[in-house]
Amino acid sequence: MTPLILSKFGIWTLATVDYISLIAAGTNAFNGALLARRPDHYKHFTVAGVTILAIAGGIGGGIVRDILVNKVPAPLENPWYLIVCLAVVTVALVVEYYSEQRFKDGLFQFMTAFSLPWYAIVGAQAALAAHLGYAAAVLIGIIATTAGRWIIDVACNVIPKQLVRGEFFVTAAALTGIAYVVCDQALGLPVVASTAIAFVVGFGFRLLSQFLGWEEWEPWEPTALDTGEKARKTLGEGLQAEVDRPAR
Amino acid sequence: MTPLILSKFGIWTLATVDYISLIAAGTNAFNGALLARRPDHYKHFTVAGVTILAIAGGIGGGIVRDILVNKVPAPLENPWYLIVCLAVVTVALVVEYYSEQRFKDGLFQFMTAFSLPWYAIVGAQAALAAHLGYAAAVLIGIIATTAGRWIIDVACNVIPKQLVRGEFFVTAAALTGIAYVVCDQALGLPVVASTAIAFVVGFGFRLLSQFLGWEEWEPWEPTALDTGEKARKTLGEGLQAEVDRPAR
Amino acid sequence: MTPLILSKFGIWTLATVDYISLIAAGTNAFNGALLARRPDHYKHFTVAGVTILAIAGGIGGGIVRDILVNKVPAPLENPWYLIVCLAVVTVALVVEYYSEQRFKDGLFQFMTAFSLPWYAIVGAQAALAAHLGYAAAVLIGIIATTAGRWIIDVACNVIPKQLVRGEFFVTAAALTGIAYVVCDQALGLPVVASTAIAFVVGFGFRLLSQFLGWEEWEPWEPTALDTGEKARKTLGEGLQAEVDRPAR
Repeated sequence: MTPLILSKFGIWTLATVDYISLIAAGTNAFNGALLARRPDHYKHFTVAGVTILAIAGGIGGGIVRDILVNKVPAPLENPWYLIVCLAVVTVALVVEYYSEQRFKDGLFQFMTAFSLPWYAIVGAQAALAAHLGYAAAVLIGIIATTAGRWIIDVACNVIPKQLVRGEFFVTAAALTGIAYVVCDQALGLPVVASTAIAFVVGFGFRLLSQFLGWEEWEPWEPTALDTGEKARKTLGEGLQAEVDRPAR
Repeated sequence: MTPLILSKFGIWTLATVDYISLIAAGTNAFNGALLARRPDHYKHFTVAGVTILAIAGGIGGGIVRDILVNKVPAPLENPWYLIVCLAVVTVALVVEYYSEQRFKDGLFQFMTAFSLPWYAIVGAQAALAAHLGYAAAVLIGIIATTAGRWIIDVACNVIPKQLVRGEFFVTAAALTGIAYVVCDQALGLPVVASTAIAFVVGFGFRLLSQFLGWEEWEPWEPTALDTGEKARKTLGEGLQAEVDRPAR
Repeated sequence: MTPLILSKFGIWTLATVDYISLIAAGTNAFNGALLARRPDHYKHFTVAGVTILAIAGGIGGGIVRDILVNKVPAPLENPWYLIVCLAVVTVALVVEYYSEQRFKDGLFQFMTAFSLPWYAIVGAQAALAAHLGYAAAVLIGIIATTAGRWIIDVACNVIPKQLVRGEFFVTAAALTGIAYVVCDQALGLPVVASTAIAFVVGFGFRLLSQFLGWEEWEPWEPTALDTGEKARKTLGEGLQAEVDRPAR
């Protein structure tokens, strides 16, 4: 299928975009395999399970991106995505098996930062190619970047990283997408240059957040003493209680 | 993008539909922000996390609806959705911070009812506009109504509200969709009138359920004493046990 | 809607494919209803909740399949899917109520195997009809087969079966898809024959796995003693610690 698509849209531009998508899939699959083996995520997964989670992390963002721009997902059309993901998972499991904990932790943190910007870039590219506007480009970039992690976290019964303190995961994705849109649309730079600049922005911001321990702000605790919806009164009871309530 | 779409489908009709979609997004984002701060859902989310959950609740239904009718999701094309959601989340957090628990509970219950019918209406509208038939209109309305809540509940590690006792959440969505389809297709009423009637049906039914404490029927407890799949025998062992089993 | 679609693509071929899709939806909805009532999945669902989970299991695979091949989901267009699912859920609940535990366990295991191959077959059919290539056909078959179970497991707060020991659930789906692609594309067999052979392959492999207790390989335990990401140092601290670390 790919050659047809390539020739249709101009072989060089799409080939570049395609390579960047493959890098996005590979780096995120590598990160997904490491993530699935971390103690807070690991839930007695089989080797097949770790592979599935890694593939979900690797091509999940690409599938979501293409569904959102209303195309058949490239990672399904093009078998190279699957080949790259499987190769990368094998490497990740071998590295995970032979290396000591300190190295694993460092590798995981590095890969988390290194894999982050790619889907923000290819998400923005896909949205711009579909003429969806700048806001959509950044938004689809964010969704594509974070979809894989969301899928893995939910499957592992962990609260999605996007929602809790995480060294500005979403902000890094947004900055990457904005940098790409500015370079590509305002400055008119070629795809490779825009990609490189956007990558440096996202990777740099993320590394800096990790290095300096920047974390998102967590708001005040909810004040409620009750345990939420289960304990609540019916609206009728509530209104009745309101009527009966003595003036303070 | 929107002006092009508007002019293509007739500006007045779609503008109305677009406004109703924005109301759906805004009310559901408001409800999502309150929900994320409730004690049974709150999991030490950051401000960004609450915002993401609220946006997911707000535009999730619209994205799912448009994916199902095979269109590029309007909430991604049209930046107003994001603007409305962000504004609404800010208001919700301010209200949540300054108000006392009793008011918060009442507001949450009111908003749960008030936000419910909108996505059932715009889901049915989108399905009818795509000529998908009446059953599809009601079904897509139900899915659009409940998708946001499902996403939030799963991310918060809570069993989706649709599946447990919840004052006829899904039934209210179905009634709203049916009311819209009847008004629009059988009675030929204009969009605004159909929307108003369907809203009154859904909102009224939901408020009544809350007021009177109507809850769905929970069936008999599963009789099993074993802990399910993990403890089960292989089929071979099971058949062997069956063969060996003494007659009673 | 269906007659139009049928006449467009040739009534006999699509009718067959449509019947197979209905079998896929019905068998998976039946299995979904049984699954939702099993003790490890049951979370005080209402009757409506069990029905929703069963429908999600029944048409989830078909919706995901059609979204991936960029079509309006057939289970939404064609009301027969919903009718079949509702009928099947009723039967499943009646059977579940009146039968003893031993029978239920056997029925559940049989249905798990019996329902498995259908979505792998219709997933491959849909991908081939959309000219997406052989790898995509098998991959979409796997995703369609396992999507319903994934949705149910995540909603029930259970780790998805695909990821843990499960008698080669994913492998059975892959083998079914490969068998269908070989029969249909390499051997040029008619749809019914290809479907029958692929079903026998998938059902047979799965039954054999259950009978003989074949399970996927679970890799070594993660070696980490820390509790993962929460406890980790910032990258700065980590590098500092690395610098300060005495030579061994």
